[in-house]
Amino acid sequence: MAKFCIVLLFIVTQGLAAPYKSSNGCGYDSCNLGKPDKLNVHIVAHTHDDVGWLKTVDQYYYGSRSEICKRGVQYILDSVVAALMENPDRRFIYVEMGFFWRWWNQQSDEMRNIVKQLVNEGRLEFISGGWSMHDEATTHYNSIIDQHSLGAEFLHDTFGECARPKIGWQIDPFGHSREVASLFAQMGFDGLFFGRIDYQDRLFRTPEKKLEMIWKGSANLDRQSWLFTGVLPHGYSAPLSFCYDIMCSDPPIMDDKNLHDYNVPERVEAFIRAAHIQSLAYATNHIIMTMGADFQGQNVNENFKNLDKLIHYVNLEQVNGSNVNIFYSTPSCYLYALNKAKKEWITKTDDFFPYASIPFAYWTGYFTSRPALKRYERYANNILQVTRQLNGFSQMNLRNSIFYLSEAMGIAQHHDAVSGTEKQHVANDYAQRLSDGIDQSMEVINAAYAKLLSKEGQTQLNVPQFLCPYTNISECLPIEGQAKFTLTLWNPTIHSVTIYPRVPVTQEYVIRDPIGNIVPAEYLPISITTKNIPGRTSSAQYQYLFQASLPALGYNTYYFEARANANKIKRRRVKTTFNEACILENEHLSIEFDGQGHLKHIVNLDKNLMVSFTAQGFYWYASFPGDPTTPELPASGAYVFRPFVSEAVPVSLSGSINCTKTDTVQKASIVFNDWVSQEFSLFRGATSVELEWTVGPIPIHDNIGKEIIIRYNTNINSGSKYYTDANGREVLERIRDHRPTWPYLVDERISGNYYPINSRIWIRDNDHQLTILTDRSEGGGSMYDGSIEIMVHRRILHDDSMGVGEALNETAYGTGLVVSGKHILLVERPEDSARLHRVGAQQLFMHPLATYSLPNTPSYANYSNIYRQSWSALSDTMPLNVHLLTFDQLTHKQYLVRVEHYFELNEDEIYSQSVTMDLQTLFKSIGTIANMTELVLNANLPLSQLHRLDWMTKDQESSHMNIFQSYSSNGTTLTLYPMQIRTFQITIN
Amino acid sequence: MAKFCIVLLFIVTQGLAAPYKSSNGCGYDSCNLGKPDKLNVHIVAHTHDDVGWLKTVDQYYYGSRSEICKRGVQYILDSVVAALMENPDRRFIYVEMGFFWRWWNQQSDEMRNIVKQLVNEGRLEFISGGWSMHDEATTHYNSIIDQHSLGAEFLHDTFGECARPKIGWQIDPFGHSREVASLFAQMGFDGLFFGRIDYQDRLFRTPEKKLEMIWKGSANLDRQSWLFTGVLPHGYSAPLSFCYDIMCSDPPIMDDKNLHDYNVPERVEAFIRAAHIQSLAYATNHIIMTMGADFQGQNVNENFKNLDKLIHYVNLEQVNGSNVNIFYSTPSCYLYALNKAKKEWITKTDDFFPYASIPFAYWTGYFTSRPALKRYERYANNILQVTRQLNGFSQMNLRNSIFYLSEAMGIAQHHDAVSGTEKQHVANDYAQRLSDGIDQSMEVINAAYAKLLSKEGQTQLNVPQFLCPYTNISECLPIEGQAKFTLTLWNPTIHSVTIYPRVPVTQEYVIRDPIGNIVPAEYLPISITTKNIPGRTSSAQYQYLFQASLPALGYNTYYFEARANANKIKRRRVKTTFNEACILENEHLSIEFDGQGHLKHIVNLDKNLMVSFTAQGFYWYASFPGDPTTPELPASGAYVFRPFVSEAVPVSLSGSINCTKTDTVQKASIVFNDWVSQEFSLFRGATSVELEWTVGPIPIHDNIGKEIIIRYNTNINSGSKYYTDANGREVLERIRDHRPTWPYLVDERISGNYYPINSRIWIRDNDHQLTILTDRSEGGGSMYDGSIEIMVHRRILHDDSMGVGEALNETAYGTGLVVSGKHILLVERPEDSARLHRVGAQQLFMHPLATYSLPNTPSYANYSNIYRQSWSALSDTMPLNVHLLTFDQLTHKQYLVRVEHYFELNEDEIYSQSVTMDLQTLFKSIGTIANMTELVLNANLPLSQLHRLDWMTKDQESSHMNIFQSYSSNGTTLTLYPMQIRTFQITIN
Repeated sequence: MAKFCIVLLFIVTQGLAAPYKSSNGCGYDSCNLGKPDKLNVHIVAHTHDDVGWLKTVDQYYYGSRSEICKRGVQYILDSVVAALMENPDRRFIYVEMGFFWRWWNQQSDEMRNIVKQLVNEGRLEFISGGWSMHDEATTHYNSIIDQHSLGAEFLHDTFGECARPKIGWQIDPFGHSREVASLFAQMGFDGLFFGRIDYQDRLFRTPEKKLEMIWKGSANLDRQSWLFTGVLPHGYSAPLSFCYDIMCSDPPIMDDKNLHDYNVPERVEAFIRAAHIQSLAYATNHIIMTMGADFQGQNVNENFKNLDKLIHYVNLEQVNGSNVNIFYSTPSCYLYALNKAKKEWITKTDDFFPYASIPFAYWTGYFTSRPALKRYERYANNILQVTRQLNGFSQMNLRNSIFYLSEAMGIAQHHDAVSGTEKQHVANDYAQRLSDGIDQSMEVINAAYAKLLSKEGQTQLNVPQFLCPYTNISECLPIEGQAKFTLTLWNPTIHSVTIYPRVPVTQEYVIRDPIGNIVPAEYLPISITTKNIPGRTSSAQYQYLFQASLPALGYNTYYFEARANANKIKRRRVKTTFNEACILENEHLSIEFDGQGHLKHIVNLDKNLMVSFTAQGFYWYASFPGDPTTPELPASGAYVFRPFVSEAVPVSLSGSINCTKTDTVQKASIVFNDWVSQEFSLFRGATSVELEWTVGPIPIHDNIGKEIIIRYNTNINSGSKYYTDANGREVLERIRDHRPTWPYLVDERISGNYYPINSRIWIRDNDHQLTILTDRSEGGGSMYDGSIEIMVHRRILHDDSMGVGEALNETAYGTGLVVSGKHILLVERPEDSARLHRVGAQQLFMHPLATYSLPNTPSYANYSNIYRQSWSALSDTMPLNVHLLTFDQLTHKQYLVRVEHYFELNEDEIYSQSVTMDLQTLFKSIGTIANMTELVLNANLPLSQLHRLDWMTKDQESSHMNIFQSYSSNGTTLTLYPMQIRTFQITIN
Repeated sequence: MAKFCIVLLFIVTQGLAAPYKSSNGCGYDSCNLGKPDKLNVHIVAHTHDDVGWLKTVDQYYYGSRSEICKRGVQYILDSVVAALMENPDRRFIYVEMGFFWRWWNQQSDEMRNIVKQLVNEGRLEFISGGWSMHDEATTHYNSIIDQHSLGAEFLHDTFGECARPKIGWQIDPFGHSREVASLFAQMGFDGLFFGRIDYQDRLFRTPEKKLEMIWKGSANLDRQSWLFTGVLPHGYSAPLSFCYDIMCSDPPIMDDKNLHDYNVPERVEAFIRAAHIQSLAYATNHIIMTMGADFQGQNVNENFKNLDKLIHYVNLEQVNGSNVNIFYSTPSCYLYALNKAKKEWITKTDDFFPYASIPFAYWTGYFTSRPALKRYERYANNILQVTRQLNGFSQMNLRNSIFYLSEAMGIAQHHDAVSGTEKQHVANDYAQRLSDGIDQSMEVINAAYAKLLSKEGQTQLNVPQFLCPYTNISECLPIEGQAKFTLTLWNPTIHSVTIYPRVPVTQEYVIRDPIGNIVPAEYLPISITTKNIPGRTSSAQYQYLFQASLPALGYNTYYFEARANANKIKRRRVKTTFNEACILENEHLSIEFDGQGHLKHIVNLDKNLMVSFTAQGFYWYASFPGDPTTPELPASGAYVFRPFVSEAVPVSLSGSINCTKTDTVQKASIVFNDWVSQEFSLFRGATSVELEWTVGPIPIHDNIGKEIIIRYNTNINSGSKYYTDANGREVLERIRDHRPTWPYLVDERISGNYYPINSRIWIRDNDHQLTILTDRSEGGGSMYDGSIEIMVHRRILHDDSMGVGEALNETAYGTGLVVSGKHILLVERPEDSARLHRVGAQQLFMHPLATYSLPNTPSYANYSNIYRQSWSALSDTMPLNVHLLTFDQLTHKQYLVRVEHYFELNEDEIYSQSVTMDLQTLFKSIGTIANMTELVLNANLPLSQLHRLDWMTKDQESSHMNIFQSYSSNGTTLTLYPMQIRTFQITIN
């Protein structure tokens, strides 16, 4: 039943390249632009519907668990349609497709036709239109694009052009990323509005009417990344005393003089006063008033009934000389009115991080909150992209099955999902959705492999592939005790990669590579730390570790065969030391430790470059618990990071160190105490050092919440500068205790210097750069010259009063949650660092996917006769600075492809150049490209049909550009400029 | 504007006598009667909308003051109409016309037509249809009938027969009066449902399936007073876990298997279980489930959406063998199904007072709560009836102006209005409405008097009449210092009366009666007690008191002329004693006091009958303040009377006594302390003693709430029996610590024996009866043999947790409220008491109305030339046992008249006989009756068209009667049987 319903409703995209026709009833032409001589107040009726927060998305949808909060989105949408039908003047906007799609699925044809009419008449307008209102700090660009495309596709297929979102509407996220502005611009959006801005930033902008601006969203993409951006007057709720929602307590408009409490004159006067005050902060004679808030509109008749009256009576005052003109509008119509005002606007080139809502309340804790969920989300994206590729290259056309994971990922991007700011039961639900989506994806992967693995001429024999998601704790129960199994690794990048898989086993095996050679593999004991992780049930004591060189955009299968006679095993050389100084070294790098486990130096041997470390390791900040006597000082919590004191305490002054050296890897395992350890691995031939950290259960016997950081103190002469990426793409310079656009008053020395680290952070001086890549979003910064600190885990005993109402105290198996993760350390010259961190970061989020199977073939020979053990979609080498971002089979013959240049300008001598590639290369195994149409980034409009509004900056720069020209391509060959992403719908012969 | 609107919308009744046609779509014929072999569950979607309680009626209507509670009836009705339009299966009932009328006035013609369609199709059904859901303990029958007629008229005029209510729906009132059942039966209702029943009563009825019965509503009226009565299963809310209102927290039906938390099987199973459990308490295979509660349905789409699903899925289970059949229904359809079941039903002859919701929580405090409001409501009714009479006899046809007071009175009948159980600001609003209504009525009175006062042939000269409502504290500011003024007294009864008006003055006057004679008047000092009442601003030190004998249904005017020369005044004889024993005596009565102010004896001289008194006076109960350690013991509060200990404490062991004797009156003023006093008055020729009590400010310095009673301890050998009236009509026997229908477990010795005293209470033995008449509703009983106690005032410092959330602590002028009132004491033989208390009570609630004017005529002679100083509508004497209950001009030539026999069977040798009268007598001054149609009591149906459902009792008595036959009349002459009220629409030639 479940699947059938979705298949019916989520018909694959068709005819995207067909010509678009705009209805007369919707779009900018339908806008009320007010009166030129009046103060025009655009009333925007809306609802802000979190796809999960205090309740799960489905609980919010249905309105269940109302003991938590009384909200039900099904009723909101029911009532919005009814209220819009009542009065054609009314307008409403809807934002979150994750909810709208749920509702739409349950509607009758009659209701659907009504909604279509409302959309076509511009009375119901979709704004932003992502599956969720994504977080901006902890989301990866790949998933932002995907979730916006998912919503855009649903809207396009359901409603057509009238439903194409034109406005970014990030009213609630807690800080705003420049990359998001850039991506929105590339989606063809004309503007962006948001509600939350640092209190100091708002303070300085307000008197100078600088709350609206042109945001230059990219340091690389020029005008195509520019986006008009407006800061809303007061979050996103109604002006004080004018909230008419059923959940509000403001006075209704009581306009029947026969009844008591008639209040029209007082309300009209108060509104006109509020409009005048608001207009002081804005540059034109147009202002916007958002009428709505979290889950408002559950009986929106109440809101509209009173707004109808307010509009009527306020405008009546014009005959008495009032200059206030008020009418229903939408964010896009407000934007259009600003555009028509032909003003010149200030510009902005940095971002809106970090965000302090009030003094001392820096919302920088959520950069790290729920580190396990943050990793799981990144892992699920990895699987989603691999699944799409496998579906596409196998031409299974199973996109509807992939929808489950796409949908779960869309929801997971929500600003209370991957951000870690939801209640625990909701976090569990997000994880369950991803898990369910992965299960569905596995069916696609299986179907795809059944085809790809079978040699031509062979009957397709489905040997079920399965994931071993717990290999991060060295557990893979299905292979335990098996006489044979295979490990297949799909490399989703378009470049070959070398990785070092680890396979936990309960017995010894011979491993064969795709051409039958026995792989030289290390057989290493699993560490005590790992074995002690709560919840691990595996009996595996050892793990194999070996080098696997994988073809670009393809797979290798490794065949594991139990050793017939264990006695015959010739042990490989393993050298181990305990609590002695040791040096891990390969041809490129040398890493030096002392006997107490302190990292001393990392030497880049190729460049003869040494970075020295002092007291590298784990520290904790005590979480401020809140204090009833100083309620203005918020507690540390899911959102806010507020250390009790600004000094972090080391978890231990020394650790025990265990160094192990093999041909394949050299490792230093340092255990600081029973809840903190780290393991450095230097692989053969590697140009980076891998650090795997394990933290937890964080102790709370002392009733003190703790926020754990890893600190890297170096001798790099970095001053106060450090660099962090935005959503995995462009990197922004950060300066300690400094904001680029206002004279910053430092109120929180530590958390006010934290920034989101989505994929990387670095510090540098003229000669040295230490770059750290992360495997998930984390928060951090440089609190001291030469130092980087990254928060990896938090366990807090108080709520920060920002709404979630729960202490962030993650537990599992009856104790605090244990989390592990990776940092990749790169020591290079600054000018050579980009190629390491760009390639490294891309490989980290698009990691080869390991699937296992239990073949029923009697022998390896038999297996290799039947199954194809290596395959690549490519025959030609692809340029290193090109990334295949999306490869998605839409229909039998249609594909959606995104390719990107993922280097920035001027960061690498070679790879920062533009690059040319041939899309046909990707389709070698599929067919010949018959037709390709370039689309906007979220794939809902041919680029040739995009016409964005033009703006003028105070510096007399026009945003105007001929977008299509700048995107010209030649046949299937195209050029990519630094940081450019190009989106194509491709039809195959 | 205000008036215009009401005039437009409340067009006077027309064509009531026209033939009625029932639409096919409404009424019993449209009922779903379920399936014979199933357990049929009638789902009744409803809302319970208090016309004022925590908020004023208009605040509830608009949904303002939502900081108090988030309710808005305008939105409820908006959403009900929308939801009914969506699905023709849905049904909703609406009850309170006070709200519906407000809403209707604001609707467009389009919306009105939609509503009419819903009503005609039976999808929206009006139930009960009074202006409010009236209280049953503290309301007077005159006002119950009026408020039901007001709602019925609105419904009839607006919607016609489909909107005629057929069911009493008293789901929330706190105890149920037998008189209400009788009145409902006479309104043509087929049944009554309520929610609140004494917890012990429910306990005993439940296992024996006795929650539904035939209630014999009158000891006098036989079958025409019988009413099928059902006790709802659990108050009036939804069964546990099935409330789908926006304010509820129960799980919605989550029926999309694609979403998380799918719960259909669990919900269906739980519902079927709930239905089976409920059916154990009811006699047929039909049960009713009320789906609604206080102000529910504000977004009733939520309720219906889930109920739709519940019905669908529960009935689906029938294919799996479930016997539960569930469908939308209404109380009348449920009743009809019970009627069709042809069962025999138990009967009941007593009432449902008092009501204990839980052990120790007797809701008997509200019988007295807010004594000033209770009196003001009775006073307002007095004015309303007088205004109708004056309008009718002057033929001014100003009914629309009277509507204001009718409407205010309709609202004041609400079970949180006159009951005194509302918040203070709401009580103030009720009083303001009555006051505003009285102001409007004064315009009618003025217009009427302008005509009636002017002698024929004279130009009508309007000398504005005004009320002096503060004469109860001897204050009438407009006449202070005036050289001349008139006092006109309208007697609204159809019998001449003698009264003793008191006129506070600042100088001496000569008073002339209607024929110019100087009236012998007493000139008495105003007491210190009165002069000290907070808020009194008058400088009057004296008051005139004189005997006024008024014509039946007419007026006298008394002319006050300042004495030209005060020296010439011949003082009338006044004899005064202080703190001495004294005896007040006239030809009928002798009242004896000792020197400490104790009442010793009252002697009926005519019958040589003495009743002795011991320790008569004022006592207080300490209010139980609640105790967190025993939360099961409720505090005393607005609803609940719960004394801390069962002993009342005297306010003083002795008082100072001041006796004054004049020709007209003999008075004994007894001051017990600075906040309690009483004054006995024995008027010349009177057969009753008047006691005026003054209580307040009740001291609370000791932080103890106090409930003040007057106790009359006598030597009457009354045993445990006492007698209290129901709503001012029939009297019920009460037995201390006893309930007629179950073995009563005494948990509260005092409050469990309290009953509403609407107009009278008595105790008696073979030879003596002490009857006490009250001027308002009070609570009381007989706690000891020979004793009567009546609670007159309450000041409480805690809330009783029954919802109002406020302590009943009335204040005025910065201190506790001072209240005064009257008890009329009658000492007679039991067999002769009825004629005293029947006539006395009728005169008390239909008291002559005093209006004043300041004539601009130079002299009395001049005045008497122009103005008619005495007038009566009647020329013939009317029988003493007939009361003119209603005299209301509907249109130019149409009148609504109610006449009643107000004696019970067997209580008086003469007056308990049936009586014949001629209606034409009433119309002597107006014209000849051309046509008269007898109507049901609430005047919305010709009696000849009434067909009530027939029922059979367990005693094999059929309720069937030919109603019209029993009401036969002959021309304009008609017969009235004891306690019969007959209602006529009369057309005049």
